[in-house]
Formats: sequence, C-alpha cells, structure tokens
Amino acid sequence: MMIQGIGAAPGIAIGKAFVLPTWEWELPDQKMDAVDLAKEIERLYEGIRTSKDEIEYIKNEFKEIVGDEESSIFDAHLAILEDPAFMSEIQGIIQRQYKAAEVAVKEAIDHFVTMFDLLDDEYMKERALDIKDVGNRLLKHLLGAPEITLPSDTQPYILVAKELSPSQLAHLNPDYVLGIITMIGGKTSHSAIMARALGIPLVSGLENKLTKPILTGDQLIVDGDNGQVYINPDSHITERYTELHSKILKKKQQLELLASVDALTKDGAELHLAANISSVKELDLALKYGAKGVGLFRTEFLYMDRPSLPSEQEQFEIYRQVAEKMGNYPVVIRTLDIGGDKELDYFTLPEEDNPFLGYRAIRISLDHKELFKTQLLAILRASAYGGVRIMYPMISSVDEVRRANEILREAMAELDERGTPYNRDIPVGIMIEIPAAVTIADLLTEEADFFSIGTNDLVQYVLAVDRMNEQIAHMYHPYHPAILRMLKMTVDAAHQSGIPVSVCGEMAGDERSIPIWLKLGVDHLSMSIQSLLKVKHRTLNTSAEEAVKLAEECFTMRTSLEIEQLLTDYVDSTK
Amino acid sequence: MMIQGIGAAPGIAIGKAFVLPTWEWELPDQKMDAVDLAKEIERLYEGIRTSKDEIEYIKNEFKEIVGDEESSIFDAHLAILEDPAFMSEIQGIIQRQYKAAEVAVKEAIDHFVTMFDLLDDEYMKERALDIKDVGNRLLKHLLGAPEITLPSDTQPYILVAKELSPSQLAHLNPDYVLGIITMIGGKTSHSAIMARALGIPLVSGLENKLTKPILTGDQLIVDGDNGQVYINPDSHITERYTELHSKILKKKQQLELLASVDALTKDGAELHLAANISSVKELDLALKYGAKGVGLFRTEFLYMDRPSLPSEQEQFEIYRQVAEKMGNYPVVIRTLDIGGDKELDYFTLPEEDNPFLGYRAIRISLDHKELFKTQLLAILRASAYGGVRIMYPMISSVDEVRRANEILREAMAELDERGTPYNRDIPVGIMIEIPAAVTIADLLTEEADFFSIGTNDLVQYVLAVDRMNEQIAHMYHPYHPAILRMLKMTVDAAHQSGIPVSVCGEMAGDERSIPIWLKLGVDHLSMSIQSLLKVKHRTLNTSAEEAVKLAEECFTMRTSLEIEQLLTDYVDSTK
Repeated sequence: MMIQGIGAAPGIAIGKAFVLPTWEWELPDQKMDAVDLAKEIERLYEGIRTSKDEIEYIKNEFKEIVGDEESSIFDAHLAILEDPAFMSEIQGIIQRQYKAAEVAVKEAIDHFVTMFDLLDDEYMKERALDIKDVGNRLLKHLLGAPEITLPSDTQPYILVAKELSPSQLAHLNPDYVLGIITMIGGKTSHSAIMARALGIPLVSGLENKLTKPILTGDQLIVDGDNGQVYINPDSHITERYTELHSKILKKKQQLELLASVDALTKDGAELHLAANISSVKELDLALKYGAKGVGLFRTEFLYMDRPSLPSEQEQFEIYRQVAEKMGNYPVVIRTLDIGGDKELDYFTLPEEDNPFLGYRAIRISLDHKELFKTQLLAILRASAYGGVRIMYPMISSVDEVRRANEILREAMAELDERGTPYNRDIPVGIMIEIPAAVTIADLLTEEADFFSIGTNDLVQYVLAVDRMNEQIAHMYHPYHPAILRMLKMTVDAAHQSGIPVSVCGEMAGDERSIPIWLKLGVDHLSMSIQSLLKVKHRTLNTSAEEAVKLAEECFTMRTSLEIEQLLTDYVDSTK
Repeated sequence: MMIQGIGAAPGIAIGKAFVLPTWEWELPDQKMDAVDLAKEIERLYEGIRTSKDEIEYIKNEFKEIVGDEESSIFDAHLAILEDPAFMSEIQGIIQRQYKAAEVAVKEAIDHFVTMFDLLDDEYMKERALDIKDVGNRLLKHLLGAPEITLPSDTQPYILVAKELSPSQLAHLNPDYVLGIITMIGGKTSHSAIMARALGIPLVSGLENKLTKPILTGDQLIVDGDNGQVYINPDSHITERYTELHSKILKKKQQLELLASVDALTKDGAELHLAANISSVKELDLALKYGAKGVGLFRTEFLYMDRPSLPSEQEQFEIYRQVAEKMGNYPVVIRTLDIGGDKELDYFTLPEEDNPFLGYRAIRISLDHKELFKTQLLAILRASAYGGVRIMYPMISSVDEVRRANEILREAMAELDERGTPYNRDIPVGIMIEIPAAVTIADLLTEEADFFSIGTNDLVQYVLAVDRMNEQIAHMYHPYHPAILRMLKMTVDAAHQSGIPVSVCGEMAGDERSIPIWLKLGVDHLSMSIQSLLKVKHRTLNTSAEEAVKLAEECFTMRTSLEIEQLLTDYVDSTK
C-alpha cells in the first residue's frame, strides 16, 4: 500500500517500523458493585506490574539506541508507579466511589496534572507531563490495548510517530533511525529542518490518510523525495527502491570524496562553506563533510526538553566541545532565539496573535538580563578554547546592539573579576533578518564585527509571508527581486565598512544561489550539513565568470518566477 | 471613584452612562416536582411577554438614536419570541424533563445554536446569534436579573460596553454618543481607530478594575487623553472637567475656522490633506473639516455586520454617494482588505499562526476572482460620478498588480458589453506597505498610476513588530531610521517616474511628521478626520525652510529616540 504524504526530508529508507505509542482511550463510565472492589484493586496492581516491566524493557532498548542520559527519563517514570500519593489517590477512588480501575487512574491523572499545573512552577509542570505519560501507560494495560514491542532484532528501524518535537528528534541516534514517518507536521517545521540536517528521510502529514494504522514490525519504504510511504510493499517495489537506494548511497559516497577539497569554481573563485548545527551530535558529520567552521550554532536546543534553564557550566561545556572539535575554524554561536514558533516548557511566553512579529530572540534576551548574561558568560569562557564568535539574532536597531554589548561588557568584567580566561577580542556579529536591519546596514556595520544574513526570516518579513502558512506558502519566494536587492544592500554596506558577511538561511544551501553569492562576493555560506557536499560539487562545476554574468541578469529581472527559472536552468545546464 | 484604563481615543466626555447589557448568568441545576410544571410554563410566558416589551422599548429608543435601518434587527428578535419551533422546544424540555424554565431556555438556545452552526451556512449562523441574543434576554427575565433602562431623558449618553466591534461602532450615531467605555480592547483596535475618526473619547481596558459595575444612569466623566473614568464624581472634579471640556470645545471651534483655509506653511509650501474614511457617515465631517478628497476609503466595513457579501448594486450606491459628495476631489477606494485582524462572519478564513503574515487583502481578492470583480465593477460604475480611483492593498510584487489589472480589464469589458458608463482612465494605484514593495518601488511605478504608503503595516513589517502585541508595542517606532529611509526610497522612486505618492497611515496625521513630508515632497497626506485640522494648524505655523533642514538632520540620525525627540521638540517650539 502506498500513501502520499509530504516529503519533509529527502532520501530513501527501507526497513521495519517502530511505532511510538500514542495514548487515546475510551473509558467505561458505569459504576461497579461493591463486590467487585477487590477485583479492581487486583487489576490495578496487575496493571502496575505490567507497566513497570514494559518501562524497564523500553528503557533498556532505548539505552542501547540513544545512550544512558536520554533513557534516564524512564527512571522517573518508574518512580511514579511507586509513588504512595499517586497510588493511594487511585485506590481511594476505586474504594470510595466504586469506580473501575481505569476510571480511577484517569481521574487521578487529571487530579495531579491539574494540581501540578496550578502550582505554576516549571519543574512541577514537567512532573505533571511525566505523570500523564506513566498514567496513560497504566491505562493502556488496564484497557488491554495492544502491547508495545520494539523490533526484537535491534536493527535500525523506521520511526513512526504521531508527531515529533525537535527535542525528541535531537535525542535520537541517527545511526539507528533509518527514516521517520509522522502523522502531523510539514516541510518547514523545525523537526523537518533537523531531519534534513541529520540526513534522515522524513515523510509527514499522513494523518487521516492511513486506512489502517502502521504496526511495529511492518516493512516500510520511506521516499522522502516524493513524500511517499509504502507499507509492506510487494517484492517488485522493494526491488526498485533497493536499487534506487544503493544508487543514492553510491552518489553520496562519491560526494564524500569531495570532503577535503576546497569549494573552488572552475576559474578559481572560492566559496567558504560552513555548517549550521543545533547540537554537538551534528559536529562529526559536519567535519566529515568538510565544513570549514560552524556558521550558525542554534543554541535554543540546549534549552529545550529540560525542566529548567541550563546553567552557565552546562552551556560552557557544550560550547567548549564545539570550539575544540572545530579546531582553528570559526564557531559562530547565536544567542538564544526562542519565541516565534520555538517555546521552552519552563519559560512561559505570552500568547501572541502574530508570534513572528512578536516577543522573540534578542528582544527576550534584553528583557531577561540574567538569562542572557549566563549565556554570554558561557560563550566567553568557551572562547578560550577555539574560534568562538558571538551572534545576536533578530536585530532591528542600533540601540539593541548597543544594549546587548553593554551586557556583554558586564559579563567580561565578571570574568575578569573571577580571573577566568576568555578571548577579549571575540568577534561579535549580528543576524540580518529583519528588513529594518538591511535598510540601516551601513549604521549597523559600526556596531558589529560581522553580519550573517538569515534568509528564512528575512524573506518572511520582506514579503509578509509566513512560510509555515500553507495558504500562502507558494508566495514564499527567496528569489524575489526585493530579496536579491536586500542581499546586495547588506553585502555592499558590510564590505564598504570592511566587515565580513555570511549567509546562513536555507538559501545558502540551495545550489541555485551560487551565482548570486559569487556576484555579491559573500564571505561565507553556512548551511545544513546535508547541503555541504552538494553545494561544493556544484561550485566545482561552475564558472565564476559565467555565473556572475547570470546573476547580473537576475538583478535586472522583475519577477521571482523569471529569476528562479533562469537559475534553475543554469544549475541543470552545469550538471 | 476614578478608574485608570487605556486612553484609546482622546477627548473628554461628561454625561450619564448607558450600559449595554451583557449576558452571563448562573443557572439552577435541580429538577422540579411534577406539580410545579404549570407554574414553570406560566413563568416562561411571563418572561416572554416582558422580553417582548423590553425589545419594543429598546427598538424605539434605538430608532431615535440610530435610525430605522439599524433598529430593524429588533424585529427579527421579536419574531424569534413568536417562533413556534423555538417555543415548543423550550416547553417540551420543561414538560418532559421537569426542568426549570431558565434551564429549558438555556438548553433550547444551545440546541438551536449548535444545530444552526452545524448547517455551515452563513445566514443560519447569523440567525443563531440572534437566537442567542433573544434567548439570553429571556433568561435574564426568568432569573430576575436587573432591568435595562435607557436614560429616560433621551439625552446623549456615555456608552458602557464589555467590548465593541467596529461594526457596532459604525452603527452608532455620533451625535448621541458623548463617549465610550469598554472593558476589553486597547489603543490599536479598529474600534479605537474609528472612535478617533468620529471624535468620540474612548477609554478601554477596564476589565477587572471596577470594584462594582457601572450602572445605567451613573454620572460619568471619560478622560480619553489620560485613560481615566470617573464614576459619580464629586462636584469638585466635575467642575474641573467641565471647565477643561469647554476649553477643548473652544479650541475645537477655533480649529474649525481653519476648515476652508489651505494647508500652507508660513513660507508658502502646501500640503494636500485628505481624509481616511470607513463609511459614508464620516463624509460630512470630512468635508466640514476641509478634507480635499478621500485618500483612503476602507471598503471592508461595507462587508461587515451582514449575512452575506454586498451585491455590486449595493456597493455601487455607496461608492457613488461618496464620489458625488466629494465633488471634484479625488476618492481613493481601496479594494477589500480583510484577513489579518479583520474577519467577515460569512467568509471563512483559515486559522493562522501569524495572520499579519498571512492570507490577506489582495491575496484573497486574487484567489476569489468573482468577489474581487464584483467590487471592481461597482467601483468602475461609480467612477462615472466623480473622481474615483482604485487602490490595491498589500502589494508585494509586480505580478500581483498585473494579475489584479487583468481582472480590472475583464470588469471593464463587461461594463462595455452592458453599455454602462465608467471612467476608462480611472487611476489605479497600490498601497506601499510591504517591505518588498518599497524595495522594488521603481519596478512598481511602471505598473501603477500612484502610490499610497500605508505606514501602519509598513512599520510592522519593517521592524517585525506587531503593534497590537503589548509585550513589544514599545518597539513600534514610526520614526525608526529604517522607516524614514524607506519612505524616501518610495517617494524618490515615484517622483523619478513622475507618479504621485501619498501617505495614508497614522503617521500622516501626526503633526511631528510634517517636516518629513515637506522634505520628501509627498503629494498628499490622508489621515483620520480628527487629525485634519490639527495638522493644518501646525502646517500654518511651520516654516518649510526650517522644517526641511530639521528633516535633513533626522535623516542623519541613528536611533528612533533621537529622531522622535527632535521632531517632538520642534512641534512644541512652533506652538
């Protein structure tokens, strides 16, 4: 059976399904006779035992796949099943209200979750989530819902989930996950961005398209290029995909030969290619693919999937790891960029009608000085161990840079007082991603040591198009004449003042943009790891002279479609 | 007692409260004995009689205040109370389920509202709202909640409401409403914009601030400048405000003397001042205050507060009225600008995470060709009766203008076929309010006959700041250096191609901007009616030579605060 979804991360995966359980049950609502009391209590304890066994089993399976650290969450789950308060609440409901064990469990979950939520404490809210998760597992057993079984041969599998948060994805071991299928989600979610970075094929948006659910152990083919999923396909299809898959692998291996080669055009112009990363996990791959530094380290993932803010020390250790691993190459650490569509469980942001035009990134950091300073302290300390640079996101004015730098100076003074070493001349740059920043780029060159153009947000704001909005996603045009002009304004302003400028949005990883970068003389391109070798390969096959001429033609064009067509044709012609 | 709220529309009002009823009741949930049945039925009919009397009374009061047309909604309400289906549903619940009359009414409302909603028909949804309204009135009587009494002396009053939609406000007769107090709402809502246009003081955001509710008949003072409301104030305060009020009136009368004077600076430079309007109702005031045309007619209000789309004929009649009333002056009719924060009851728009970056304005029109063409036909027909111009909102590309003009040509061809007269040379302009439009303004001059800069949206997009978002509203800076530069880019591009450019955002009505407009040579300013005379007065007291020098200084500044300070000081110095 073939199901058409959304191809959210390219590539092909062939393997067995592992289905992440979701919890949605119907409960009986009738009351019991008094005589059934003992039976219900017995059922409850039976359910608890089964749940514990299952959690132990999953914990061990997961430990193998994702490591000790991530599997420790299951210890917390086991502890809840032994928690006297939770257990006596359930038992009380059964005994005093004559309710079935599953109803009692449900009511106890609701009671604790509501109570914990009311406490308005981030840690307790996290615990409420744990209780919900464990309680639901218990419910599942009481209701006799199907068992979770992991692929017993512990081979790598295709993960099937209702939806997957970026933090869940960050915890997966890419070596064990061949591909991913999610019911909810699209092309532009952060999970999709991460899946692409890790090179894991992802097909999303299958909700309401499956006539029967995918079961753990089903044989699957995930075609991330075409957004297709095959469930228990016939041998004919499997053969075809196996062949295709090996071709892709071969191509990939060929590309990998380019890892150590410089990205020079045929006529000797060089593009400096760096990687965008979200976790230390991606670094090895970045180096393997020949990244000359990290052009964008998205630090928000350090803040996600935890009960509280990461400490200075925790952050420092991660930043230092990245700095040390990258040796002499630059590592651009972007300060926290939450808000918009990125939230932290323990840091409540206001509900907003237009979060992309709202309380985000540097705006939050400047309002929460301690949070910001902690991060700056950690970055500064890491600067003693490598080519660390700081970058502020969402800058829209000269004042913002000045205020951020003021806090940076305070952090430096604190390290001086502590006697802790750091790079006093650490380069401090800003993201150019708000139209205002482009328009006053000349003024901003005097406040910043470098620019990095974030094309994803810039395109959104310049065109007033939320690219996550399916209704108008077709209007999201990186090759809009206004965007090309804004890129030029930014690069020209930077170079007039002698500061370097890089591009770190998705446009940087699009081969079609190479002529634009060559024409503008962009200093660095930072892109998803999976784009590195493709862009390098295309660069090696490009004539800078020809490409610049082509870009000049683009700059005379009036519509996105004309420009996109010209660049697409050019890339095709160099293949 | 003084309550501090948000000053949403300036001015002072002194008078008696008229409280618009809201409906939120607690219901008894016990069942009755069978013997009470007859009594409940009797109570029900008693309640129906009282409700009818009350609706008749309000209808007559309203007719005097707002006219026949608007008060006709109450006929629909009376009809519901005589509707056999609704009544037998209520009676059935009382008789068969032994429930109290108020519970039966509540359940019948819910039943009908749910049913009508399910029909997914716009007209039925409107009817569901009527049933809810009437049902709630009936409930009120059954529960013995306090009576609605209108000020018996029928003098103008201060309207007190939980919240007020723009369409409700559009239906008010400004001569009878001295001021408005709402519990919910802020400075930037469309209701606030309209209240400012009509010159009605408005204080919002009083929710949770009143220790006891305001009652109809309470003596009130509304201080829209300071956002304060006084409830039954002592004679001392009343005296002070009465004095202040008469001073304001005197000032206003003095300003009104300027109505027929041209807006010339001391050294003879002229600004052309036009009005932004949302309804025919505002035209008389615009003319009274000397507006030289309508620079922005927001047509979306014609589409609001009705069960279905307005027909070509209905629209034509309104556009013609406006054209005829304005005589030889230009009337710029902006095509439908819904989406964002403006919705129509009968036109379902998708839920969006970032509606301001979403499906709005021309994007909707180009997708719904028939809707768009109907409006264009109506505007074209009206062009035979005055200086009508067409303006497309939210333009971000050359293609969009071309596609809109293609539909305009179809509309013209249709009128040619019908033999209906229209102005074949009707000027067709575009709003410049998306950063992309500024950046490619030179390309757009070849597609449009004129530009109008919508500063409200432009500032939002350029700075990535939703001005409705309280968390970051302080970052909404029209005097940001990037905005000044974008204004200049737009005006320069227009004038280089010889097309006129006007400004129609709130910035146009801000006296502090006068030096900017004089420097840039903006052709028209279109502003809220209430700003017309103030801006004219300030212009008369301005030296263009001095102002241009000042503006030039603004263009060298690096921060919003410096620029705003300089302009504010200058305005103060010319007072």
